[in-house]
Amino acid sequence: MPDIAKLLWPKTVAVVGASSDTKGLRGRILEVMLSHPYAGTIYPVSRSATEVQGRKAYCSVAELPGPADLAVLIIPAEFVVEELERCGRAGVKAAVILSSGFAEEPGEAGTRMQEALRATAARYDMAVCGPNSEGFANIAAALCPTFSPAMDVSAGPLLPKRPLGGQVSVISQSGGLGFAFFDRARGRNLAFRHIVTTGNEAVLETSDFLDAMLDEGKTDVYLLLLEDVKTPAKFRRAADKALKAGKPLIVAKIGQTEPGRRAVASHTAALAGSHAAYRAIFQHHGVIEGRDFDEMIDLAVGFLACGKKLPAGKRMGVCTSSGGAGVWMADACVRAGLEVPMLDDATRKAIDVHLPSYGTSQNPVDSTAQGVHKLGYAEFARLVGQSPLVDGVMVVVTARRSAFLENDLPKLQALGRDSKKPVFMWTYTLPSDRSVEILNEAGYPLFTGALGCARTMRAMADYRALRERLLRPAEMHSIPAPDRAAARAMLAAAAPVLCEWHARPVLAAYGIGGNTAGQLVHSAAEAEATARAMARPAALKVQSADIPHKTEAGAVALNISGDGARAAYERVLAAAKRHAPHARIDGVLVQPMAPPGREVILGVNRDPNWGPLLMVGLGGVLVEALGDVALAPVPLDHAGARALLGRLKGAAVLGAFRGAPPADTDALVELMVQLSLFAADYADEIAEIDLNPVIVHAKGQGVSLVDALIVKQQPRPAQHRAAE
Amino acid sequence: MPDIAKLLWPKTVAVVGASSDTKGLRGRILEVMLSHPYAGTIYPVSRSATEVQGRKAYCSVAELPGPADLAVLIIPAEFVVEELERCGRAGVKAAVILSSGFAEEPGEAGTRMQEALRATAARYDMAVCGPNSEGFANIAAALCPTFSPAMDVSAGPLLPKRPLGGQVSVISQSGGLGFAFFDRARGRNLAFRHIVTTGNEAVLETSDFLDAMLDEGKTDVYLLLLEDVKTPAKFRRAADKALKAGKPLIVAKIGQTEPGRRAVASHTAALAGSHAAYRAIFQHHGVIEGRDFDEMIDLAVGFLACGKKLPAGKRMGVCTSSGGAGVWMADACVRAGLEVPMLDDATRKAIDVHLPSYGTSQNPVDSTAQGVHKLGYAEFARLVGQSPLVDGVMVVVTARRSAFLENDLPKLQALGRDSKKPVFMWTYTLPSDRSVEILNEAGYPLFTGALGCARTMRAMADYRALRERLLRPAEMHSIPAPDRAAARAMLAAAAPVLCEWHARPVLAAYGIGGNTAGQLVHSAAEAEATARAMARPAALKVQSADIPHKTEAGAVALNISGDGARAAYERVLAAAKRHAPHARIDGVLVQPMAPPGREVILGVNRDPNWGPLLMVGLGGVLVEALGDVALAPVPLDHAGARALLGRLKGAAVLGAFRGAPPADTDALVELMVQLSLFAADYADEIAEIDLNPVIVHAKGQGVSLVDALIVKQQPRPAQHRAAE
Repeated sequence: MPDIAKLLWPKTVAVVGASSDTKGLRGRILEVMLSHPYAGTIYPVSRSATEVQGRKAYCSVAELPGPADLAVLIIPAEFVVEELERCGRAGVKAAVILSSGFAEEPGEAGTRMQEALRATAARYDMAVCGPNSEGFANIAAALCPTFSPAMDVSAGPLLPKRPLGGQVSVISQSGGLGFAFFDRARGRNLAFRHIVTTGNEAVLETSDFLDAMLDEGKTDVYLLLLEDVKTPAKFRRAADKALKAGKPLIVAKIGQTEPGRRAVASHTAALAGSHAAYRAIFQHHGVIEGRDFDEMIDLAVGFLACGKKLPAGKRMGVCTSSGGAGVWMADACVRAGLEVPMLDDATRKAIDVHLPSYGTSQNPVDSTAQGVHKLGYAEFARLVGQSPLVDGVMVVVTARRSAFLENDLPKLQALGRDSKKPVFMWTYTLPSDRSVEILNEAGYPLFTGALGCARTMRAMADYRALRERLLRPAEMHSIPAPDRAAARAMLAAAAPVLCEWHARPVLAAYGIGGNTAGQLVHSAAEAEATARAMARPAALKVQSADIPHKTEAGAVALNISGDGARAAYERVLAAAKRHAPHARIDGVLVQPMAPPGREVILGVNRDPNWGPLLMVGLGGVLVEALGDVALAPVPLDHAGARALLGRLKGAAVLGAFRGAPPADTDALVELMVQLSLFAADYADEIAEIDLNPVIVHAKGQGVSLVDALIVKQQPRPAQHRAAE
Repeated sequence: MPDIAKLLWPKTVAVVGASSDTKGLRGRILEVMLSHPYAGTIYPVSRSATEVQGRKAYCSVAELPGPADLAVLIIPAEFVVEELERCGRAGVKAAVILSSGFAEEPGEAGTRMQEALRATAARYDMAVCGPNSEGFANIAAALCPTFSPAMDVSAGPLLPKRPLGGQVSVISQSGGLGFAFFDRARGRNLAFRHIVTTGNEAVLETSDFLDAMLDEGKTDVYLLLLEDVKTPAKFRRAADKALKAGKPLIVAKIGQTEPGRRAVASHTAALAGSHAAYRAIFQHHGVIEGRDFDEMIDLAVGFLACGKKLPAGKRMGVCTSSGGAGVWMADACVRAGLEVPMLDDATRKAIDVHLPSYGTSQNPVDSTAQGVHKLGYAEFARLVGQSPLVDGVMVVVTARRSAFLENDLPKLQALGRDSKKPVFMWTYTLPSDRSVEILNEAGYPLFTGALGCARTMRAMADYRALRERLLRPAEMHSIPAPDRAAARAMLAAAAPVLCEWHARPVLAAYGIGGNTAGQLVHSAAEAEATARAMARPAALKVQSADIPHKTEAGAVALNISGDGARAAYERVLAAAKRHAPHARIDGVLVQPMAPPGREVILGVNRDPNWGPLLMVGLGGVLVEALGDVALAPVPLDHAGARALLGRLKGAAVLGAFRGAPPADTDALVELMVQLSLFAADYADEIAEIDLNPVIVHAKGQGVSLVDALIVKQQPRPAQHRAAE
């Protein structure tokens, strides 16, 4: 593995292709680098000039006075591989390649050059960022090998005068967007540490940089912009490492929609992939999704300011000096999924003594302008935060003038230090720079959007809850050990499509579906005898690997009595033959109809990036009209399965609903855990599993598997796979 | 009706309570007023001083050199009524009352003073704003009778150097939030006209100001902040007037949630009311809801910049010089409900000639940095806008430096002038002030948030579509005229609760439910005979005004054959008697079971503010698990009813769904129109109507009314009503 530290923390840097023409990118990059007080040595390398921007230039990396740690390449694409080779020979251990013209180009030539670049880097074990990167900035080292105008010293200082506690790093596949995070966070007093734009990721991926920065241990919050994930397993490992360390990953995954995906595919070599799958992975690993710059910067500000002080729940105390603004914040909290409960009597009494007659302590606490003038914001926030009924405090302020906050500073600082609960500030007026500074200095995040403020608090509560759940040891104990040998043997022997009759025994080896329900019959008489022997009406289903969608083919008959079984047998067989004249039919499965209950769809689909994902959906109409399903990678433990169910919009259907008793979610969760284990064990062998529907009966009465289908993964021609 | 022009456009203003102490509110207000070049005359009125802030002060409004048009009162609450009386006698025709201590105070005294104030204003026909107002600003006249720090000249000029075309006015019940709109829109180059903070609205309401400004005709977009609506009919009239004039109302209704409502009730005299009802009214009248300052300001910027140039549909062309940013914008568009279709071949050909090999014309059009440097933003936007497949253009720019835009200005101006479609600009970098100016000057709105940009475009498309629909003459023609006399007589004669047997004939007079289905029986034998005579299985339902919820009482039996009718009759009667021993039972209704179809809930509820609202919801599970219902005021025409159905999340259920043919939405829409007409005709007599469920059969096969209930409006004691 190449050493990323050589890339991010070089002592000597060669800029290959440097020019004195600062109108062009080759001149701009050196100009930007020289504008900052980087302590290391910068060598311009130029074939044509002996001096660049007043510095002695060298004609090759081989001719430098000493070896460079890092080479910055900004030369035409066709010379890059050759130059990288030269760097390797000269002992350069890292390179950032800003040249474009590689895999992002249509045609084969660029892709071939990128392959050659990768091979060269591997040969010399070089840490390479790019190609098609916009460079990076190591702000802690004042090193900015990039032509981004955002990093020019004229755009402002690299660090705010009084930064909010902690540091944030950006890793972005898009150059422009990566540096825009830095640019747009100006005025929020964030201390950025690294900004890396990874371009085509021929060698080093987002996950590699993330992993290296986690090892470095100095970044507290990460802002990631992803077009794709090159090596899914690596991303998942890095995300887990971040979660364990309590360093939030705030991620914008662009290309979520069909036109967005189209654009990603066209402008880079990346394939955006299914967003549902990405979302499943993010939610599973505690990755926080952001949709826009401001939202993501709000999240970074919140997490940085609060550090480990995350809300233990969703109950907020709101205090305000402006009645209307307090109402708006209370609305925003509820809209973001937070609660604003009435405060307890003791807290109210402690507040009431400070309120004029037109104030109120109920929550929102309207301390009124008069109350705040007397006591300050901090004291009311402290009183509200003491309530055992709140997990965090939202303080509505007007930060247009700083004088008042300045007076309140000692109390604000004391509260920021002593409070065990997060305290957020929202200003409804345009804040002055000094006000932002004062509040940030005292340790508070300041928001200008009420919704952004509330959403950030909500994300912090979710992050804490998820982290606590995910870091708890998995509860797998209650599942009986599967008979893996039996399942593997059956699966290996089976045809590519396992219809219910073949799927059930395989699933049963994992405890799924209990004993195989029903019987396979081969004649009308046998069907009748079987149906008559059953306590409930029967279902008759044609079994054939060639007819995976039996219902659409008319090859299923439901609610059949013993009297009707003969006719039904003939009917479903005839329909099957009409539908697929050449189908090989195994027989007709005769089963008792399941007793009533809530209908659930369970399935597993193998995502080309992320492998098998368990899917759960509730009720036919909810799934089909609203697409109300939730996905997660496998395996899942009980808590994970329960959390997945909770993500369904229609989750209420499983509770006491329309007069029916609560459904047996314990049994459903158990089934999900078993199915997820099965899917994980055959991650590469199985393409698809459908248990549709599963009927969930009343609490204590278990579930009925009404149908089952397994489709094995087919090896595909390499050509096809690449286009996937 | 008092003359609001005297309030907003006075030639002479008396400031009663003015002081030289500019640390207090009484001094600040005069200081703020004097800091602007108001052309009229300002008289300080003071009991104690003969000179205030260097101006001659008068001891009373009666002593002024000439009569004042407007009196600004900032004196203790207990002197306000007396002072208003004095103003009235002195011929002052308008007053703005900044004093607080009226109905927003707990207890009776403040409310009584507010009543007296209202009476005094009425006696002299004075236009009164407040009390508990933060004043107003007439920016066109440079008149700012307010102590809001946002309006102090030190906070910046009242108008931007180069405003975006058109003017925006703010009407806000909250003082702080009202002026914050102005404050927070700095840097967006909006020309504000009026900012009015209405306080307790003892005399003039938000709707009155809105109406007056609409008559004035100079405001193009309105930003409203509502805690409540005092006179619903007035608001609806003003909203209609705005819609007809094409002047968008962008409204934040605060107190939408339970804690928010609690806070509204406590800090002002307002009652926030049900937000579902407000939303129904807003949607019906084309009022655009905003959730946060930034969102509302984005909307104002979009509407102002585009004027009448609203998108004819939701299809957007996206052009970008940054691949990643274009992807993000495409995602944002789709997320906001817009479309980003592939462009047509002719347009693509015209674009392709300008693109380097790594650009693409598909949409998003990635014109690349190189392409944009050659051709500029405007030319690509023009080419994209020419496509017949797009209704608007989203241009992704980097506005951090203005030089490039400056060069592109002539083309930008030409496009801004000539384009028939709206063109929006989104900058992913932090824009410089000059860049904003250039783009605004050329007629473009500039957004910093991709989501805000997309949402604004979506709102503009919706506004145009809604406006076109609402301004079309109503299509009532196809409904047969109701027999109003018959319905009125039946309703008058009926008990307070009309169970199905009584409700059906009343509804039938409006063509609802066709002939009364089923028959009322009074013995088991009669039940059997009736059930036997039916072609389908029967439903038996106990009819009693005392048992409106029959199913929960067990007083309904479904799917009963002739054989089972006797037992079912006895069973439902027994259950009814157990449930309500003293219920007066009319008999048992025996009806044929409705054939299958999609289940719909139709209802009417009388909102205490807004009167009867028609409610529609789809499918039992969808309504109950997700609360998926839509509301509208009555009556509705066919297009309105259809639009209401379209608002349901699960609307797809009515199409071809799960193998079933499309439902008979024409029949459902007809029923909704009829029911809405009925509800409108008895707006004051009926509290509630439930048609639950209505079964909608396949297209052409109509609907079945399975149950019906009407609850008459009961006159309530006045005491109770006030607390509603």
